Amino acid sequence: MKKEFAVIGLGRFGGSIVRELIELDADVMAIDISSERVDEYAHIATQAVAADTTDESVLRSIGIRNFEHVVVAIGENIQASILTTLMLKEIGVKKITVKAQNDSHEKVLRKIGADQVVHPERDMGIRIANNMVSNNILDYLELSDEYSIAEIKANDKLVGSTLIDLDIRAKYGVNIVAIKRGKHILVSPQAIEKIRLEDILIVIGSDEEIHKFEKKALH
Amino acid sequence: MKKEFAVIGLGRFGGSIVRELIELDADVMAIDISSERVDEYAHIATQAVAADTTDESVLRSIGIRNFEHVVVAIGENIQASILTTLMLKEIGVKKITVKAQNDSHEKVLRKIGADQVVHPERDMGIRIANNMVSNNILDYLELSDEYSIAEIKANDKLVGSTLIDLDIRAKYGVNIVAIKRGKHILVSPQAIEKIRLEDILIVIGSDEEIHKFEKKALH
Amino acid sequence: MKKEFAVIGLGRFGGSIVRELIELDADVMAIDISSERVDEYAHIATQAVAADTTDESVLRSIGIRNFEHVVVAIGENIQASILTTLMLKEIGVKKITVKAQNDSHEKVLRKIGADQVVHPERDMGIRIANNMVSNNILDYLELSDEYSIAEIKANDKLVGSTLIDLDIRAKYGVNIVAIKRGKHILVSPQAIEKIRLEDILIVIGSDEEIHKFEKKALH
Amino acid sequence: MKKEFAVIGLGRFGGSIVRELIELDADVMAIDISSERVDEYAHIATQAVAADTTDESVLRSIGIRNFEHVVVAIGENIQASILTTLMLKEIGVKKITVKAQNDSHEKVLRKIGADQVVHPERDMGIRIANNMVSNNILDYLELSDEYSIAEIKANDKLVGSTLIDLDIRAKYGVNIVAIKRGKHILVSPQAIEKIRLEDILIVIGSDEEIHKFEKKALH
Amino acid sequence: MKKEFAVIGLGRFGGSIVRELIELDADVMAIDISSERVDEYAHIATQAVAADTTDESVLRSIGIRNFEHVVVAIGENIQASILTTLMLKEIGVKKITVKAQNDSHEKVLRKIGADQVVHPERDMGIRIANNMVSNNILDYLELSDEYSIAEIKANDKLVGSTLIDLDIRAKYGVNIVAIKRGKHILVSPQAIEKIRLEDILIVIGSDEEIHKFEKKALH
Amino acid sequence: MKKEFAVIGLGRFGGSIVRELIELDADVMAIDISSERVDEYAHIATQAVAADTTDESVLRSIGIRNFEHVVVAIGENIQASILTTLMLKEIGVKKITVKAQNDSHEKVLRKIGADQVVHPERDMGIRIANNMVSNNILDYLELSDEYSIAEIKANDKLVGSTLIDLDIRAKYGVNIVAIKRGKHILVSPQAIEKIRLEDILIVIGSDEEIHKFEKKALH
Amino acid sequence: MKKEFAVIGLGRFGGSIVRELIELDADVMAIDISSERVDEYAHIATQAVAADTTDESVLRSIGIRNFEHVVVAIGENIQASILTTLMLKEIGVKKITVKAQNDSHEKVLRKIGADQVVHPERDMGIRIANNMVSNNILDYLELSDEYSIAEIKANDKLVGSTLIDLDIRAKYGVNIVAIKRGKHILVSPQAIEKIRLEDILIVIGSDEEIHKFEKKALH
Amino acid sequence: MKKEFAVIGLGRFGGSIVRELIELDADVMAIDISSERVDEYAHIATQAVAADTTDESVLRSIGIRNFEHVVVAIGENIQASILTTLMLKEIGVKKITVKAQNDSHEKVLRKIGADQVVHPERDMGIRIANNMVSNNILDYLELSDEYSIAEIKANDKLVGSTLIDLDIRAKYGVNIVAIKRGKHILVSPQAIEKIRLEDILIVIGSDEEIHKFEKKALH
Repeated sequence: MKKEFAVIGLGRFGGSIVRELIELDADVMAIDISSERVDEYAHIATQAVAADTTDESVLRSIGIRNFEHVVVAIGENIQASILTTLMLKEIGVKKITVKAQNDSHEKVLRKIGADQVVHPERDMGIRIANNMVSNNILDYLELSDEYSIAEIKANDKLVGSTLIDLDIRAKYGVNIVAIKRGKHILVSPQAIEKIRLEDILIVIGSDEEIHKFEKKALH
Repeated sequence: MKKEFAVIGLGRFGGSIVRELIELDADVMAIDISSERVDEYAHIATQAVAADTTDESVLRSIGIRNFEHVVVAIGENIQASILTTLMLKEIGVKKITVKAQNDSHEKVLRKIGADQVVHPERDMGIRIANNMVSNNILDYLELSDEYSIAEIKANDKLVGSTLIDLDIRAKYGVNIVAIKRGKHILVSPQAIEKIRLEDILIVIGSDEEIHKFEKKALH
Repeated sequence: MKKEFAVIGLGRFGGSIVRELIELDADVMAIDISSERVDEYAHIATQAVAADTTDESVLRSIGIRNFEHVVVAIGENIQASILTTLMLKEIGVKKITVKAQNDSHEKVLRKIGADQVVHPERDMGIRIANNMVSNNILDYLELSDEYSIAEIKANDKLVGSTLIDLDIRAKYGVNIVAIKRGKHILVSPQAIEKIRLEDILIVIGSDEEIHKFEKKALH
Repeated sequence: MKKEFAVIGLGRFGGSIVRELIELDADVMAIDISSERVDEYAHIATQAVAADTTDESVLRSIGIRNFEHVVVAIGENIQASILTTLMLKEIGVKKITVKAQNDSHEKVLRKIGADQVVHPERDMGIRIANNMVSNNILDYLELSDEYSIAEIKANDKLVGSTLIDLDIRAKYGVNIVAIKRGKHILVSPQAIEKIRLEDILIVIGSDEEIHKFEKKALH
Repeated sequence: MKKEFAVIGLGRFGGSIVRELIELDADVMAIDISSERVDEYAHIATQAVAADTTDESVLRSIGIRNFEHVVVAIGENIQASILTTLMLKEIGVKKITVKAQNDSHEKVLRKIGADQVVHPERDMGIRIANNMVSNNILDYLELSDEYSIAEIKANDKLVGSTLIDLDIRAKYGVNIVAIKRGKHILVSPQAIEKIRLEDILIVIGSDEEIHKFEKKALH
Repeated sequence: MKKEFAVIGLGRFGGSIVRELIELDADVMAIDISSERVDEYAHIATQAVAADTTDESVLRSIGIRNFEHVVVAIGENIQASILTTLMLKEIGVKKITVKAQNDSHEKVLRKIGADQVVHPERDMGIRIANNMVSNNILDYLELSDEYSIAEIKANDKLVGSTLIDLDIRAKYGVNIVAIKRGKHILVSPQAIEKIRLEDILIVIGSDEEIHKFEKKALH
Repeated sequence: MKKEFAVIGLGRFGGSIVRELIELDADVMAIDISSERVDEYAHIATQAVAADTTDESVLRSIGIRNFEHVVVAIGENIQASILTTLMLKEIGVKKITVKAQNDSHEKVLRKIGADQVVHPERDMGIRIANNMVSNNILDYLELSDEYSIAEIKANDKLVGSTLIDLDIRAKYGVNIVAIKRGKHILVSPQAIEKIRLEDILIVIGSDEEIHKFEKKALH
Repeated sequence: MKKEFAVIGLGRFGGSIVRELIELDADVMAIDISSERVDEYAHIATQAVAADTTDESVLRSIGIRNFEHVVVAIGENIQASILTTLMLKEIGVKKITVKAQNDSHEKVLRKIGADQVVHPERDMGIRIANNMVSNNILDYLELSDEYSIAEIKANDKLVGSTLIDLDIRAKYGVNIVAIKRGKHILVSPQAIEKIRLEDILIVIGSDEEIHKFEKKALH
């Protein structure tokens, strides 16, 4: 059976969630207070409804209770975001994810029962900043406060060497999990694999080790 | 020597970049047309300047040319975003990252020479949607169109088995790169390692294989 | 030692609290986001401060923590009312009374920890309505859902009779607690007291008994 | 026969009057210049009408003359409040109650013939302030400038004593009219009645005596 | 001793009063809420003051009580006009003339004690309309509901005749009070006076008689 | 045949002209750009039309050419007033009266061919000012720069005397044209007529003589 | 076959292009985002369409691709101008002429592929300025940075002389290409042609020579 | 002696006139009601003044009378344009050029005495439209309603032929006044001159002849 979601607020963030969920083959009800925006999603979402979600009776009439997971992606209007979240909680929606504007907004949302609070622009800003300081680190996945997996662009200093030559694990403490070569991914590459120009190394390690590797091995 | 960055536009996205860069020990000039916003960043950024960045002479007077990498994080004003990017290019800034509002905006930015164009809300929406459809997949790093690394929450069906018992690689084609256990990360876990309650498996594989694993092994 | 209060929001409601507290010889800090309004209260309140109370550091800087009891009388701005209440709670203010605009607003306020929530216009509307339906009932104090004390205007049917003649207790079940005669109050009037024109009877009884008395004895 | 009322202005104050009057089984015509607000009251009031009440012919056409008592609860618009009141007076409405914004507004209203002028927010502010300064005084009814009836929470110092022990009348000059015990009200309690925890004393006396009692007996 | 006047509201109407009073050698205080307008009158009026005249203390501080006659010429703001008039009355100004916007406004003004209420645009409209319908009647002074004095342009039918020839009094019931001939005025013209081209007859009579004369004698 | 007029602009001034012309039994077309205002005049004017009078084709389509006399009573919008007047002139309307806001406006209107330019508020301000300085002069008609007819209230100094006694003509140079006594007008009163309390004298004379009479005879 | 053009933006500039193209017998589609403006052009242009031209699908649906030459005459909205131009280029329109507001706007337009960028107000300002400094030069055509053709008013100093007498070519280096005499144009006038009053000389030469001629020969 | 000009209104049109006049070595006073705009021109114009030009005394105080020629380039505000022009005329400025928004505006300007009225956007639109219909006609100068001088791009059909071969005068009635070849201009080219690729022919003739030549000779 398909999963059923509702997304309230169809700005860039909420709209992107709707489109991706549909692509992932889920059923989505797209909700916004502006009927103009709802019209845009009429042919994209499973259902698109114009509704004032701060009004409990309205929320009930669209059967919001039946959705497994509701995302409150309301943009600038903090008051509407809070009241909508409260209503969803009162009605008994199981899982509620809410976009917050700032820390105070997050605190209120948590007090009234939001299950997950997200800060899309702040979080994406953090990613961008990390990429900026390490030009060779293209992307990364934060595993814990200390450990990450990172994509690192190989450069002239590495090209032509085998993994055995480089002895990266011993020297820097990081493991090469995979190599991205054009469209292909070599999972658990062999020790005799030679690094080629344009290769991207997928490494796992502590943040300190990864940065040491990125600085020493590549510069 | 410290890296030097400039961030133009101090909304939630740009502001988050400034804070993170400072945390990463970089030098940052924070720029906004509103002096009120600039005041907020006076004690956070290395320098904070109120300036109309669509005016080339203004940009030159603040020495924008000397920055390695400039981020244009201007919010709603597409015109200001385009003109600022054009000015930065004319002045000869080496690397320019720009936040786009939509696809047309991105096209104009690329034509006038933006090096990197980002869509924070859209991209974060995609992440959130992916997490929503696979409750056990906590986070992921997209390596290519087909391959990803994913964080998957272990459940009752797996707990107590060793990796050798589960034979995940053979059954699903995915590799377990690491296990996250509380604050610790076990890189390249041994085959006899027993999966415990609350363990999070870091797996690499094709998107198809990861989803098969997530569906079959855990349900 | 004088009691110390703070009132946030200096509209008609908050302003009236400030003036009355001062009259009752308490110390009051009057706070509003508009400096114009603060100026009006500079010579009335013990202290008058212009401050954005949704900003925690601002609240701390004016020493809000030291006040025994803080009233949030913010007018139309529900968001500011919620965030201010949250901040006061976080800072550790002991007692917080907040004016609510509607039921949803009240629910959010209670969830984030408001001790007392008031609805001045709604409550006064209820009082006015009660006076309207019973012309002879001038004012009343609701003791419980069933019992009240009421001020009832004596009319021609009563004037000239003694309390003993009227035998109100036996006939209607209500007790005459006092008689208001011009500027004087006769507490526990004697049975032989004669009711005069313009007398106001202060009676205690169940709402049903009081209304029966008001309808039967006076009409 | 039911009483007939009209309420002009359906904000929080006017709306509350309408709801309470209906609850008290009266007939009410609810009037507002905004048809949106009128729609909200279509199923609550006996009749709901959108009308510009500053226009005499409009007022006549809705038969305003036939109402016993009309409340002008118009919010911010002082001019509309004054003109409406004038029209009602000209048409010959018997009793007119008007909400005032400030003292000057009240003066104009009285000059043009308003029978009763109310200040809901100011009056409720006064009540709240009085409760704030005397924590044990829960509510009160002002009988005259000097005399009141007050609800006072009994505390440890009183609990366990009989009224005779306490000799309150002699010591403080106040009379205990009733005791509120949970949901019950003991009217004219006997002298041997023992005060219990959570009891609320209903006392009558001069304001000075009540405050002396509240301060001395309870602290 | 010079007469002292105050004019509140310096729009076209109030401004014209100020200028004319100064020309007539009176002392005038010119008052407006906008300091910009007050600046315009600084060199015209005896005194020019920027003040909010709805505030009694402000009115007192400018000594409004000492003026013999105050004109309230406030433009569009009916509320300010009413409150100002009330304040002037409370303070005890002897004579108050107020400009009204419409009939309801006039009624309120009269109730609160305005001595004279004027409608400049309405009254001037009436004058213009009268001139329009009777091309030969250039201006007129309404003496009562029935009687007027009118300026009537003589035409070819009258020119050359003496007053005796015309026998206007007998035929039409109107009296010729004066003849305006270029810059000269002939008061009580003699019966043998011949009417010349361009003469203007000043006649007194009932409105009916004047119109009969205007229609019959001149057409 | 009835006269036909058109009035463009239905504010207080234009509206008053329409009403008076209808009262004077003329045919009037009432025109305004706001259809709301036009609706008000639908039952008052002979015809009421909503039209943008700065558009020549619109003016032609309503047959403006056929009106004998058109009044442009447009309120604040100087541009619309000028363009409308120009259009009327181009179309060939015979007589055009226009309301001006100020002297520059008047100059432009005269240059483009307005036949008559009026300043209702300024002119009425002048009348009011004249009445203010001479309390006994109730109204007046300006015959020339030097001569007027004035209504002067008789006071104690005059009451009881006959006109012969007073010898006003000899002493002050003014002629008594009529006496207004309650509702009656005595035209050319006889010399033996005694002045009564409340009589109003209608006098003709030079402004100087009238003022001398008003000051000397009455004070 | 008629040429087909589209003009986007129907302000004064775009509207003038539409009218002139129609006069020159071309087919024109007139496009604007405001349907009100489109209505004005419904009877002027071959086709008139209300459309948001920043939306690619809208542009395609009106068949913009089939037009030989599209003019983007959008007024103040730089963003709409840029996005529309980009869309036209993407769709593959062969020739695009765009109105620019300033130099930065022009640069962006050129980068994204505009074929021709025009500055109507700036260019017309330059023409007017040139006419102003040389009163006798009525108009001119700039052939290159150095050469122009100019219309020069003949004055008293020239009138009556033949071209041979004046020997203009030898003295000033300019050639007389034609003489404009009333409605007639004498191309390549003969040497014996006498210059008459009101003649206008059409001369070709370097800017320097033309100015020398204008200054020396005519003053 | 330098010529002295004043330009009122510093938008794109007025600003362009100021810059060009300065380039042409004239003295210019730049005037605008907005001091922000005036600041922009402080270093460009000879003098830059912020002034309300609808106020005659202001215009006099800046000595506007002394300028030979004043341009009124006020943008959208038709009223200000008209009043300013009137004031300049009253003060006695010799030559006044005014930018008009539309035909009615032009009519008013001419009536009140503007010497020259220009329509920059309309006129430039006409030029652009003409270039559009004749791709080979690059620019033109309209000599009369019938005659023009045009710049025509030579194409393959002409290249390599001498003027004598082509016999253009005989065939089409147009004269070749000059040939533009790269940066050079050949005035009155010789008959044996061969036309080269990229040559631009400057021809004079009637509009009909020029178009015939452009169509026949080049296609």
